[in-house]
Amino acid sequence: MSDKVAVLVAGSWGTALASVLASNNREVWVWTRTEEQAREINESHTNNRYLPGITLPSNIQATTDMKAAVQSAAAVVIVAPSSAMREVAGQLKEHWNDEMLVIHATKGFELDSLKRMSTVIAEELGCEEGRIVVLSGPSHAEEVVRRCPTTVVVASADANAAEAAQDLFMNTYFRVYTNRDMLGVELAGALKNIIALGAGMSDGLGFGDNAKAALITRGIAEMLRVGMEMGANPLTFAGLAGIGDLVVTATSRHSRNWRAGSMLGQGKSLDEVLSSMGMVVEGVRTTKAAYTISQKYGVQMPIADQLYHVLFENRDPRSAVEGLMGRGPKTEMEMMPLETWEQWHT
Amino acid sequence: MSDKVAVLVAGSWGTALASVLASNNREVWVWTRTEEQAREINESHTNNRYLPGITLPSNIQATTDMKAAVQSAAAVVIVAPSSAMREVAGQLKEHWNDEMLVIHATKGFELDSLKRMSTVIAEELGCEEGRIVVLSGPSHAEEVVRRCPTTVVVASADANAAEAAQDLFMNTYFRVYTNRDMLGVELAGALKNIIALGAGMSDGLGFGDNAKAALITRGIAEMLRVGMEMGANPLTFAGLAGIGDLVVTATSRHSRNWRAGSMLGQGKSLDEVLSSMGMVVEGVRTTKAAYTISQKYGVQMPIADQLYHVLFENRDPRSAVEGLMGRGPKTEMEMMPLETWEQWHT
Repeated sequence: MSDKVAVLVAGSWGTALASVLASNNREVWVWTRTEEQAREINESHTNNRYLPGITLPSNIQATTDMKAAVQSAAAVVIVAPSSAMREVAGQLKEHWNDEMLVIHATKGFELDSLKRMSTVIAEELGCEEGRIVVLSGPSHAEEVVRRCPTTVVVASADANAAEAAQDLFMNTYFRVYTNRDMLGVELAGALKNIIALGAGMSDGLGFGDNAKAALITRGIAEMLRVGMEMGANPLTFAGLAGIGDLVVTATSRHSRNWRAGSMLGQGKSLDEVLSSMGMVVEGVRTTKAAYTISQKYGVQMPIADQLYHVLFENRDPRSAVEGLMGRGPKTEMEMMPLETWEQWHT
Repeated sequence: MSDKVAVLVAGSWGTALASVLASNNREVWVWTRTEEQAREINESHTNNRYLPGITLPSNIQATTDMKAAVQSAAAVVIVAPSSAMREVAGQLKEHWNDEMLVIHATKGFELDSLKRMSTVIAEELGCEEGRIVVLSGPSHAEEVVRRCPTTVVVASADANAAEAAQDLFMNTYFRVYTNRDMLGVELAGALKNIIALGAGMSDGLGFGDNAKAALITRGIAEMLRVGMEMGANPLTFAGLAGIGDLVVTATSRHSRNWRAGSMLGQGKSLDEVLSSMGMVVEGVRTTKAAYTISQKYGVQMPIADQLYHVLFENRDPRSAVEGLMGRGPKTEMEMMPLETWEQWHT
């Protein structure tokens, strides 16, 4: 098998994953959209817009020519923003062949269709969804490029594909576990960004750690409720892609979703927040998608609902977070998915 | 019913709970061990050793006379350190009567017997364990006295007792939910201090948020594994007393257990850490208790085991945390309690 791996688009997470592959002595090709970014990566070994102050391994090659990046690669790692996934996968189609391992590491849904990223990729490539691998878990790009110890999960219906992805990425600072529940891993990765936005908003309002912990706890219950309704394994939500990623996204200042929420809590408008970030905030789109999902499946998603009102209907953040804290059931188990409760008591 | 409530011992959490009761217009009596502390609370309305810089409500009365504190109270709230619980409950016995609601808010086990706090209290008072209420959840005392929004859970086998405790504490900034699983709430509250120590140690070593999130995720699995072995409801670990409290304890600098772990990670000895804290660090005792429990029940507790070696056998913190990150299973589900896995797939 070729040692060549292609990484599609050089945002912060794509670049961080490329740096892991480079430290595993793979031949790493990164496909970027602009000549300027390709030149910066090839000549200065930096990607300052996305990972300021970081020197990248010199064995990462960047190109704007997708064919050059993908040709004869053993694996393709797609890390496009969710809004660009269909287009990037569509472009990949003509350079891709059925021998190549396909891994994606994008958290979110396609906005109008509400499809998961693996579905979008499979449709564009014309392959089985079950052969695609998703990589997810608690992993700030800034820490990964600095080789801080990190653990992630790779999930696929195809156990061989998941194990191949595990072998590709695994090293002493980047630990990779396999999981069979791709649906759960993708749902958890997308939905946790909503809760992280909410946690940031609570912090921006000055509500403190107790309030944030309560929001995270309710958030896990909300994610689990949706996940089970859609057929995911509940244990996935207790794992790295669920609780793990939620904790790191909701409590760390590295997190874009947390920062966006925090600015909203401080009274900034969505437009101001998005323009000051200069990067995609997946949680904002995912909140819109989740709002539609909750209507479609008839699942209660109080956190996503409140955030939808704040983001798109000018609801005051304070009244939204207070609404989440103040109301609700009197017993804790009423917050949990009922099916779970019954399953444990029969 | 009398409006009088007694709070036994005025540490930071006892004082914070007294302040909640005081803002609910209860007649609050706090029992303290020293005349000096009683005088400070009564005259300056402060408790500077435990809650520096905070002015307490003036309707909290302190006394060193347990009879004066408890006599004709409708409820007694016991917040003694776990090591003093048996002695305090024993002293309470002669002033207590069977009409009084008994609530405790102490997280830990009795060291040699490994008994839970409710068992210790019931033995000393000579009452049914099932009538005692435990209060737990993500609740830094410093935030509660500042009236930051906080949610907790009260659990008891006696639903009426839990609801009476809910009514006693509930207000607009302090939300109280009931739960029937007292065993799970007590186990979760005690065990999460071990994980918080480990998270602090990881931070003290400079390992970053990714590593900490992985440790928290494994910590929840470890807590769940022990809890299920001992007969608790797994959903309790997904709730406020489980994930909620673990998140706040493991990610917040307010947390004593996190701070103790962080100092250990920075290379301080256990003796140095304990003497510089000036307060009880429940996680240290609980690690010793958990180590014994894991041997007794044959449950794998890798985090508690590694911490035991660091705390009591001079193991280097770096090799302990790296040991936790580096080894272990290849699939994520191997980390989960097997019973859970099977129950979900049959």
